Amino acid sequence: MVQNKEVFSEISPADFFYRNRDIAGFSNPSRAIYSAIREFVENSLDTCELNAIPPDVYIRISYVSGDMEGPATYKIRVEDNGGGVPPEHIPMAFGRVFYGSKYKLRQTRGTFGLGGTMAILYGQITTHKPVYVMSSTGTSKIHENELTIDIQRNKPVVLSQRTKDNKARWHGTVVELQIEGDYFRAMPKILDYFKQTAMVSPYADIVFVDPRGRLYMFQRNTTKMPSAAKEVKPHPYGVDVETIQRITRATDAKDMASFMTTHFHRVGEKIAQKFLKEAKIDPDLDPKRLASHDIVSLVHHLKSFKEFLPPDASCLSPLGEELLEKGVRKELTPEFVAVDQRKPAAYSGFSFIVETAIAYGGEVQRPGIELYRFANRIPLLYDEASDVSWKVISTLINWRHYKIAPEVPIAIIVHLCSTKIPYKSVGKEFIADRPEVEREILNSVRELARKLSLFISRKASVEREKEKFDIFTKYMPKIAHFSAKLAGKSKDANIEPLLKNISKLDPED
Amino acid sequence: MVQNKEVFSEISPADFFYRNRDIAGFSNPSRAIYSAIREFVENSLDTCELNAIPPDVYIRISYVSGDMEGPATYKIRVEDNGGGVPPEHIPMAFGRVFYGSKYKLRQTRGTFGLGGTMAILYGQITTHKPVYVMSSTGTSKIHENELTIDIQRNKPVVLSQRTKDNKARWHGTVVELQIEGDYFRAMPKILDYFKQTAMVSPYADIVFVDPRGRLYMFQRNTTKMPSAAKEVKPHPYGVDVETIQRITRATDAKDMASFMTTHFHRVGEKIAQKFLKEAKIDPDLDPKRLASHDIVSLVHHLKSFKEFLPPDASCLSPLGEELLEKGVRKELTPEFVAVDQRKPAAYSGFSFIVETAIAYGGEVQRPGIELYRFANRIPLLYDEASDVSWKVISTLINWRHYKIAPEVPIAIIVHLCSTKIPYKSVGKEFIADRPEVEREILNSVRELARKLSLFISRKASVEREKEKFDIFTKYMPKIAHFSAKLAGKSKDANIEPLLKNISKLDPED
Repeated sequence: MVQNKEVFSEISPADFFYRNRDIAGFSNPSRAIYSAIREFVENSLDTCELNAIPPDVYIRISYVSGDMEGPATYKIRVEDNGGGVPPEHIPMAFGRVFYGSKYKLRQTRGTFGLGGTMAILYGQITTHKPVYVMSSTGTSKIHENELTIDIQRNKPVVLSQRTKDNKARWHGTVVELQIEGDYFRAMPKILDYFKQTAMVSPYADIVFVDPRGRLYMFQRNTTKMPSAAKEVKPHPYGVDVETIQRITRATDAKDMASFMTTHFHRVGEKIAQKFLKEAKIDPDLDPKRLASHDIVSLVHHLKSFKEFLPPDASCLSPLGEELLEKGVRKELTPEFVAVDQRKPAAYSGFSFIVETAIAYGGEVQRPGIELYRFANRIPLLYDEASDVSWKVISTLINWRHYKIAPEVPIAIIVHLCSTKIPYKSVGKEFIADRPEVEREILNSVRELARKLSLFISRKASVEREKEKFDIFTKYMPKIAHFSAKLAGKSKDANIEPLLKNISKLDPED
Repeated sequence: MVQNKEVFSEISPADFFYRNRDIAGFSNPSRAIYSAIREFVENSLDTCELNAIPPDVYIRISYVSGDMEGPATYKIRVEDNGGGVPPEHIPMAFGRVFYGSKYKLRQTRGTFGLGGTMAILYGQITTHKPVYVMSSTGTSKIHENELTIDIQRNKPVVLSQRTKDNKARWHGTVVELQIEGDYFRAMPKILDYFKQTAMVSPYADIVFVDPRGRLYMFQRNTTKMPSAAKEVKPHPYGVDVETIQRITRATDAKDMASFMTTHFHRVGEKIAQKFLKEAKIDPDLDPKRLASHDIVSLVHHLKSFKEFLPPDASCLSPLGEELLEKGVRKELTPEFVAVDQRKPAAYSGFSFIVETAIAYGGEVQRPGIELYRFANRIPLLYDEASDVSWKVISTLINWRHYKIAPEVPIAIIVHLCSTKIPYKSVGKEFIADRPEVEREILNSVRELARKLSLFISRKASVEREKEKFDIFTKYMPKIAHFSAKLAGKSKDANIEPLLKNISKLDPED
């Protein structure tokens, strides 16, 4: 017998992320304070947008103790005017990993339902202080909680709860916690984060007060909000046997025909009948009587049936070309902007829309291409080289083909929105190169490159023409004068009509 | 009151990874079959090494159904001769996320305790088939289990259990499962994975049979194994308040002095006393009476006290220069190899060792640098551009400084071993650029670059010398003959001694 040296044990979800905080974006004090801010701001914007409230988000970081040159203790306070968290959910929503409101098929910034709790957990393990949460859904009461997380048991420990009157019927959430962070190293990223968030959320008011008391205001320039994202049923192409099994367990449908139309995205009576016929499934079969191999066969047919309608993009909430251009003009002030929104597409049954913009000249001055990446309106600031958009602009597009030299100052903005962003890490920093997504980004950026190419070559023509015209303007009078003298005339010929004529010529002819 | 549209709910750990399988390396059928193979092989190698058994690992992938041109159903079987899983742990170890044997501070390939269960989960959701596990720790019995995972409850569902006699006292584990995968797209990576695993585990016998029945054998060329990695206590620099709290809850130590020496890595009586004095903590204080702010203050002092000994590397199990060179020569057959092992270092209290090798010429023929990355003997094959080693060789080292031109064919091997590899993703594909780790890799690769530079310039000298010598050999006889004729001598002077002399000259003088 082997005296096996392996010891088996179990850890809680909170413990897993406590041990592996690197993978959730909390790898060092600089990254941690950035991630904490980001997670809370995203939760605030999500709740506002979902409830169609123009967001007012206030963030304050204040110094508590330690040496500000390196990692020190800071207090973070984030306030929003969103929907608020119902009182019975407050302890769990903030003090338990894998408990949250993001586990729906819907376009939200948050996807893992993890970030807020991770930030609280990180604050706790570095400062040992509880988090303070105040929230109201706009009822007559405001609820206050102080809590810590029992990491080994993945449970909130409520230290105090208070209720106060809410005469103003305020709704929203306030979170305040202490955390060890390296603010001054994280500062450039944090400011970039706010700037870029403002670029794609021009309807939000964001106020940020930093530890030195400096105030950064990002004011809305519109109150027009994109329509709220809706929850959708799974698309037949995206399901697996686990999903089907869960649906059969929970369904009230009595036969396969209504099973199909009730539980799947864009499956109507007619398509359901046609599909069941092709899959050789009895339309009258009780879904609860599907055997194991029936489910496997059903999934295979769902994936291969050609006549399902593509996912509907009405569940998505893209920015739209108008808002995108507004945002880019506001934050980058370029000489030239072109925007492009692709038609809705889908990967593995999840619909998505790619929106892109290109900005050139003006205050865009750094030579080369600067890439701004967004996913469901989150700016992605780290690990650019692993992102699909980077792959597209740096290896798949031949810029010389568009006569755009490497030193031309360009900014490219790529926004992907989807009910499920294919992130490659829990830290939500870069997007996988799913072929369908890559193709849409590629085509969109090509479209922009064409437009910019046209603009640049027109600009060059205009410059060449102007140069030519300048030469004419300079020498024509001399020639006219000389000719007049030669012909013995006392008055020069009028050259104005001639010059006008020249300036109208297309210099390319 | 806001009719908040957010709905709060909880999901299980298995459900979380089911929904977000991309982040665990199961993003598509090609990646999934690669990850599944890798996770099982790593578990097999880990258990063998931990129990000091030279590994015999057998992997077979066989075709089950579907179109082999794309995603199809395959059966994967992995057998090892490791320590085996005790029967009472089999269902949980294979059917429950966050249950395993990797939650110790010890150098192992596995770190998340997640991979095997993820592979089983992925197999289940794509094929709806149970996994078969057979294992024995070398007792008189062999235990067989068939099980599936209840994903929503994160629990194994045992379908059948059998016990049979084990007269041969076999020990090890056999896992067999069905999975949807795209074998032929994954094949190059899978073969690379085996080849590179063989490179850093020259003491392992690995046999792989692919779906076409092709046999790949990677035979050990040594039975000498690196010493097994040991579990270590946490180092004072690496702890946080959560760790201290857990230790105080569990400790039997009656005073702070014994608390320090019992629970921390490399803290002896003398250092403990000195530390407690500096931290102004009473050595006789009962650890269970530490108040919340005492713990925070203790952690700050632990991090800033200068006299703790650095982490001991005896817990690590590097390959060693000899085994590394053997592996590189065996798999790459280059003209020149240099290896380098750095002294043990530490980041955040986790000790690590960097080992590197450089190979040049011979069968290394592709122009440019090919990078082979390893972490705790796992080959890392994806997302190279995000890895710290890539950063080092592509941006931090100035190869021209070493007179190594960009088109010179080089292979660089970087092996990091640590009780905790700072992975940036659950998929274990790339390592974060922790400054301490980056510095060690940089210095090590610089050392190799110097050695290679010397070799190449010597080689060039030899070539130049040979060229010079060839010219002499060609013209000297002519000159000698001409001189002889001129002098009226009938016999040419003997030039042999002269040529010998020249060939000994250092051409650089």
